[in-house]
Amino acid sequence: MQHIQRLFDIHPWKIATTKLDVENRRLQESLTSIGNGYMGMRGNFEEKYSADHHLGTYLAGVWFPDKTRVGWWKNGYPEYFGKVINAVNFIAMDIFVNGEAVDLSVIEPKDFYMELDMETGILARRFTVTVGGATIAFSFERFLSIVKKELAMIRMDAEVLAGHADIHIVSKLDNNVQNEDSNYDEMFWEELAKGTTNDINHLTTRTVPNPFGIEQFTVTSAMTHNVLPTTIETSDLAIAATFDFQANAGEKVHLEKEVVVLTSRDVAEEQQVATAIDYVTKFGSNYDSLRQEQADAWRKRWDLADVTIQGDDAAQQGIRFNLFQLFSTYYGEDERLNIGPKGFTGEKYGGATYWDTEAYAVPLYLALADSNVTKNLLKYRHNQLPQAQHNARQQGLKGALYPMVTFTGVECHNEWEITFEEIHRNGAIAYAIYNYTNYTGDTEYLKTNGLEVLVEIARFWADRVHYSKRNDAYMIHGVTGPNEYENNINNNWYTNTIAAWVLNYTLENYLRYQEETTITITEEEQAKWRKIIEKMYFPVDEELGVFVQHDTFLDKDLMHVTELDPKHLPLNQNWSWDRILRSCFIKQADVLQGIYFLNNQFTEEEKRRNFEFYEPMTVHESSLSPSIHAILAAELGMEDKALEMYERTARLDLDNYNNDTEDGLHITSMTGSWLGIVQGFAQMKTFDETLSFAPFVPKTWDSYAFHINYRGRLLAVSVTQEQVTLKLLEGDALTLTVYKDSYTLEDTLEIPVKKN
Amino acid sequence: MQHIQRLFDIHPWKIATTKLDVENRRLQESLTSIGNGYMGMRGNFEEKYSADHHLGTYLAGVWFPDKTRVGWWKNGYPEYFGKVINAVNFIAMDIFVNGEAVDLSVIEPKDFYMELDMETGILARRFTVTVGGATIAFSFERFLSIVKKELAMIRMDAEVLAGHADIHIVSKLDNNVQNEDSNYDEMFWEELAKGTTNDINHLTTRTVPNPFGIEQFTVTSAMTHNVLPTTIETSDLAIAATFDFQANAGEKVHLEKEVVVLTSRDVAEEQQVATAIDYVTKFGSNYDSLRQEQADAWRKRWDLADVTIQGDDAAQQGIRFNLFQLFSTYYGEDERLNIGPKGFTGEKYGGATYWDTEAYAVPLYLALADSNVTKNLLKYRHNQLPQAQHNARQQGLKGALYPMVTFTGVECHNEWEITFEEIHRNGAIAYAIYNYTNYTGDTEYLKTNGLEVLVEIARFWADRVHYSKRNDAYMIHGVTGPNEYENNINNNWYTNTIAAWVLNYTLENYLRYQEETTITITEEEQAKWRKIIEKMYFPVDEELGVFVQHDTFLDKDLMHVTELDPKHLPLNQNWSWDRILRSCFIKQADVLQGIYFLNNQFTEEEKRRNFEFYEPMTVHESSLSPSIHAILAAELGMEDKALEMYERTARLDLDNYNNDTEDGLHITSMTGSWLGIVQGFAQMKTFDETLSFAPFVPKTWDSYAFHINYRGRLLAVSVTQEQVTLKLLEGDALTLTVYKDSYTLEDTLEIPVKKN
Repeated sequence: MQHIQRLFDIHPWKIATTKLDVENRRLQESLTSIGNGYMGMRGNFEEKYSADHHLGTYLAGVWFPDKTRVGWWKNGYPEYFGKVINAVNFIAMDIFVNGEAVDLSVIEPKDFYMELDMETGILARRFTVTVGGATIAFSFERFLSIVKKELAMIRMDAEVLAGHADIHIVSKLDNNVQNEDSNYDEMFWEELAKGTTNDINHLTTRTVPNPFGIEQFTVTSAMTHNVLPTTIETSDLAIAATFDFQANAGEKVHLEKEVVVLTSRDVAEEQQVATAIDYVTKFGSNYDSLRQEQADAWRKRWDLADVTIQGDDAAQQGIRFNLFQLFSTYYGEDERLNIGPKGFTGEKYGGATYWDTEAYAVPLYLALADSNVTKNLLKYRHNQLPQAQHNARQQGLKGALYPMVTFTGVECHNEWEITFEEIHRNGAIAYAIYNYTNYTGDTEYLKTNGLEVLVEIARFWADRVHYSKRNDAYMIHGVTGPNEYENNINNNWYTNTIAAWVLNYTLENYLRYQEETTITITEEEQAKWRKIIEKMYFPVDEELGVFVQHDTFLDKDLMHVTELDPKHLPLNQNWSWDRILRSCFIKQADVLQGIYFLNNQFTEEEKRRNFEFYEPMTVHESSLSPSIHAILAAELGMEDKALEMYERTARLDLDNYNNDTEDGLHITSMTGSWLGIVQGFAQMKTFDETLSFAPFVPKTWDSYAFHINYRGRLLAVSVTQEQVTLKLLEGDALTLTVYKDSYTLEDTLEIPVKKN
Repeated sequence: MQHIQRLFDIHPWKIATTKLDVENRRLQESLTSIGNGYMGMRGNFEEKYSADHHLGTYLAGVWFPDKTRVGWWKNGYPEYFGKVINAVNFIAMDIFVNGEAVDLSVIEPKDFYMELDMETGILARRFTVTVGGATIAFSFERFLSIVKKELAMIRMDAEVLAGHADIHIVSKLDNNVQNEDSNYDEMFWEELAKGTTNDINHLTTRTVPNPFGIEQFTVTSAMTHNVLPTTIETSDLAIAATFDFQANAGEKVHLEKEVVVLTSRDVAEEQQVATAIDYVTKFGSNYDSLRQEQADAWRKRWDLADVTIQGDDAAQQGIRFNLFQLFSTYYGEDERLNIGPKGFTGEKYGGATYWDTEAYAVPLYLALADSNVTKNLLKYRHNQLPQAQHNARQQGLKGALYPMVTFTGVECHNEWEITFEEIHRNGAIAYAIYNYTNYTGDTEYLKTNGLEVLVEIARFWADRVHYSKRNDAYMIHGVTGPNEYENNINNNWYTNTIAAWVLNYTLENYLRYQEETTITITEEEQAKWRKIIEKMYFPVDEELGVFVQHDTFLDKDLMHVTELDPKHLPLNQNWSWDRILRSCFIKQADVLQGIYFLNNQFTEEEKRRNFEFYEPMTVHESSLSPSIHAILAAELGMEDKALEMYERTARLDLDNYNNDTEDGLHITSMTGSWLGIVQGFAQMKTFDETLSFAPFVPKTWDSYAFHINYRGRLLAVSVTQEQVTLKLLEGDALTLTVYKDSYTLEDTLEIPVKKN
C-alpha cells in the first residue's frame, strides 16, 4: 500500500541510472548529493540546465538569520529564523557547441548515465548529444575531497563523434544564488572582491548585514584549470574563465577544474585570497592522484563502518547510502559543527542542530568512530550552555533550555508550538551524556562538563513543572511531544518520563561525584527535585494497560492507519493542520521513544502492549520514526514489522517514502538503518554497563555483518540464519551477553541463532 | 492597584489638555482620533512634528494583503494577512516662519491647548511659539464631515504677537506613507497621476499589485484653499500648494483647506479626478456653514444615543468618548463595511471584521439605530457565505466557517491557533441572527438569509465534532476559546455550548419555517444533529459546582490575580507566551461569555458560582472582557465589581488600562460601557420576546438616563437612586417587565428602585 518512488537502480555500491528524469530532477539531485563535512552540494549539473531543478551548494557553519517577525509577536518568540544558505556555485561550467548551449532540458541526450559511487565518493555522468550540428559524447566527474576539505575537483571530457565542434566553455565561480526558502526573495550575499592572480581566479563574497548581531560570513572561492583560459570575464558576484576548443570527429577535449573554498570560520577575511591561492597551488592539480587519495580515504571509512547484507541488494544499497550521506555531512572533525537535518542537500528546516543528533546519531558515532567524535558532539552543547540558559530566561524559566533549531545555541525557529513547547529535546541532550558514559565507561566527561549541563537541564525541568493541588502531583502542561502531529498537550507521557529521569540521573550523579565537582545543589533544591520525582504524574490507562500519550489522547476518535483510504497519505500533504492535530494519527514514536530510551525499565509485556496500541496509529511521517519501531518490533519478535520498518528507514530517500526527498535528504534519520540492524535485528544493547546481543536475520536475507567499537575493543559481528559469530579484532577480552547467556569473548564466539 | 494613565482632563463633552506630551505623543494621537465612517485619522498635527509619533490616515474598506508566508507553512493556513493601510496624509500643512520650521518637537510651545469636542466632532488646537524671531499664536481646527463623507475641512489661524513674520506654508496631499506593521518595510502605494485643475490640486495613487488576486484600490485626493497658492510643487506620490504671508505684530493670517477623498470602492479610477474636482466645487468652501452642519448632525446622533450620567464626570466622559469613537467608525451607512477593531485609529490587528461585531456591537446598534443598520451587519455575513464555505473547505470541513479576521470573508490572519481553532466565533455569527430576530420581532431575515447562514454554520459544527467512544459523547477538540490565553484546548465549555445551541436553534427554526424556505436538511442530517445535541459533552465539576473552562483547566496551578505581584501586569507585556498559556489566568470572559449570551438558561446560583470562580482569575487584558463582567456582576448584585468593570470598559482608552492605546483605540470594545449601563446597571434584557429591566444606580452616581429603540418604539429610561422612570416617546403601548413585575408602558411609568 505504501507509495514508493524509485529513480535509481538497485546496486550494492552505486546510485546509478540511465534516465535523465526531467519530471523528478530535484529528487535526482537530492539523491546524488555529495559532501565532505566542510562543504557539499546537490547533484546539480556542471553545465546549464534550464528546466525545474534546485541549485544548491552549502558550506558547513555558514548561515544567515532570516527575518520572520510577521503577524502578532509575543514575548519569548525567537528573533530570527536561522537558515542554511546557498553559497557560491563553483562547479558551474556552461558549454556551447558551435554557438549552441548544451542544456539537457532542451536537447534530449542519448546514452545518458549517471552514478554516485558510494565506495569512493565520486559522482560521474556521461551522455551523448547532437548540438550545433556536432554529435559529442560528454563525461563529467567530480568529488569533494575528504582528505583536503577545502578542495573540489571537477573533470570534463568530450569526444566528438560526428561533425566539427567549436566548443566554448564558461567555467565559473558564481555567487548569484538565492535560497528558495528566503523570505521575500532576499539575496543573502554581497561581493567584496574578485580577481585573477597567478592564473587563479578568485571571488570573495560576504553575507549581507543583519539586524540581529549575528556575524557576517566571508567566503573566498578560487579556481584554476589544467589549461589557460581564453578570457576572464567578471560580472556581479561572479568570475568566469572561458575556454575555446576546436575538435573534429574522433577528437577529444579534456578540462580539469580545481577549486578551493575558504570561509571566515577558518581564515580571516583579509587572508582569504592569499590563502586560497596558496592552497590551490599547494594541493596541486593532479586529478588522478587526488582521485585515488579520495577513494583510499573512503575505503578506510568503509573498513570500519560498512554493514554488509547478503541476500537483499536493496537493503544493502539503502544502508550504504545512509552511511555515505551521513559521513559526507559529519565525520566528527570539527567540534564547532553538528549534523544538520538536510546536511548539504537542501535548505528546508533551517538550523544545523536538532535533538536528532543526541537521540539518533550519537549511538552510531559511539560505535563507528573514535569516542572523541561523540565527545565533540557533547561539548558542542556544553559550549552552548549560556545560550541554552538564555533560551530558558526568554520563557521566564530557570536552568537551561537547549534549542529545537539552532546554529549558535540560541533558539532560531519561529513556531511557538515547537520552540518553547517541544521541550522534551532537553531530555535527549541529557540522555546523550548518559549514553556516552554508559557506552564508553568514561566518567570524566560526566563529572565535569556533563554535570554542568545536566544540572542546568534539571533546573529547567524543576521550574517548568507545576504542582496540581487537586491531583497532588507535579504536571507538565503545554508541551509538544516527539509526535509533532499534536501541539500544546498536557502531561505528555514521554516528556514527563524523560523529565523525571533527568532529575533522577542528575541527582544520582551529583551525589556520586559531589566531591569531584564544583557544582552545588543545595539541600533545599535536592529536596524539591526528590519531591518532583516522587510525585510526577504519568498518565496510564489501567484497562488498556498502556502509558497514555497525553491527558486526553484516549478521548480521540481512535483508529488504525489501515482504516484510512491510502489517498490521504502522507497526511501532512493531504490534510489540513487542523485535521492532523485533532486526529489520533502519530507522526513518530512518542510513548515508544521513551520505551526505546529507557528500555531496561519496562517489562516485555509493557513494551508489547504499548507497541501494539500505538504503532497501528503511527503514520511514520517523520523520518525519525521507522528506526525506533524497527528496533522495538525486532525486540518483540515481530519480524515482518521490523523488516518493513527497516526498509522504510533504509530506503526512505532512495524510495522517496515521504514524498519530500526532492527538498533534500533526511540526513539525521540516516542512522536509522544502522540502528535497525545493530539495535534491531542484532538487538545490541549496552544498558547496565553490559554489551548484549540477541540477533536474528530477517527471513528474506541470508546474513548481515558489521563492526563496532566498544570500550577500546573492535568487534566484528556477523549473523546468518543459523549462527552468530563474534570476533574480537582489537582490544582485551570482553564479557558480554548473547541471548541472555554470558560469554567471554577472547577471539571468536560462534553461537547458534535462537529462534523465537 | 490597577495601573492607569490619564492624559486628558475630565470633562463631560471634551477630550482636552493643556499639555503637549512628547513622551506619550502616540497615546495622545490615538485619543484625539476623528473619523466619519468613510475615513479617519489619528490626532496627528497638521504641521511637521519630528519626534516619535504615528502618522496615520485610513480609508474604510481600503486594504492590502501583506505577505506572511515565512517559516513552515501547513495545509489550511491563510495565504495572506489583510491589513488596514495607511493612506494619503491630506491634513499636512508644514509651516515655516522666517525660514524656520514650526515643529513642536523642537520648539517648546506656550499656552498649548488641544481639544476634541465630542458634541460636534471637531478637533482643535492652539499654541504660541517664538520661531524665526517672531512670536505667533497658532490655532488649528479640523473635521471630517459626517454629512458629506468625502469631505475634510482644515483651518489654520496665526496671529503675530511680536516681531515680523514671513510665513511660508506648504499644504500637501502626501501619499509617502507606510504601515508601521508592514512586513519588511514594504510600500503599499504607487502613483498614477497628479495635477492641478481649476486651482484644485489632485493626486491619484493605487495600492501596489499583490500575488493573491485581491483588487488594487485607487484613491484620488483633491484639495483647494481659500487663497491662491504661490507655487504648486510636486514630488513622488505628493503634490503641494505653497503660500507666503507677511505679517507684523497684531496681524493675522488665515488659511482654509478643503479636501475631498475618493476611492475606487465608489468611483471608478478613470472618473476619479473629474469627480473629485466636481465634489470640491460642489461642496463649496464655506467653512463656517460646513462646521455648523457638522455640529447639527452630531447633535442629532446624540439626541438618540447619548447616555447621561449625573454625579460622575469621568464615567460620563468615558461613555461619550466610546459612543463618539464608535459612531466615528461605523454608523451603518455602508453595508459593505464592518467595524474594525481599531477603526481609523491605528494599524494593529489587521482585518476589518471580527466576531466583536456580532457579540458586542449588535446589541448597541439594535437599540441605538434603525434596525436596518443591524440587518446590514447580518447581510454582510450572508454576502460572505461562499467565502466562509471556502474557509471550512480549507480545513477539510463541511459547512461554513466565518473568519476570525477578514476583509472579504476569507480568513486573512496567520496564526493557526486563532485562524482555525478560535472557531467559537462561528457561534456568535449565528447568535447575532437570533439576537436581531428576538430584539426586533422581525422574522423575515431569519426565514431567508438567516437560515442559509445558520444551516451552514450548523453543518460546520456537525462535522467539526467527533464522537468519543470511550465517553459515548461528542467532543470538540483543538480549539481556542474566547480566552485567548490558552490555545488548542479540548472541550472548551463555551465552544461546546454555543455549538450545541446553534444546532438546536437552527433545527428548531428550520422546522418552524420549513414551508417558507428553499433549504433542505435531510432526515438523516437532522437525526445526526439531534444526536450531537443530545450527546454533546460539557465539562462540569460537581464538587466546585462550575462549568469547567476546558478538559484540564482544573489541573492547573489555580490562583487569584490578586496573588500576583502587580508588576507582572499586564501579563501580555511581562510574561512569555509559554507562561501565559500554562497559567490559570484568563484574558476575557469565557465560561461567563456563554452565561451572558444564554443568560436565561442558567440559575442565579449557577451564575454566581461561575462568576465567583472565574472572575478572580481573570486579568481582563482583552478590551472585550470588562463589559461582560460588569453586566454579570450587576445582575448578581455585586455593585462594586460592576462599577469597577464599568470604569474599566468606559475609560479603557482614556485611562490606558491595558497600556496599549498608543497603538490605537479599542473600537469594537467601545460598546462595553453602553452595555455596562444598559444591560448591566439597568439590567435590560430581551429574552423570550420580552423587554425587561431591573435597574440600580451605583452608589457614587446620582443618576443615569438613556434612550432605546425597541420594536418600533422609542423609550427614554432614567434611573435615580430612588426611582426608575420609563417614558414612551414614540410608538405603541408596550408590555414590559421591571423587577420581574409586568407593566404596560403607555406614556410614563415611575417605579421605585428595588434595593438588593
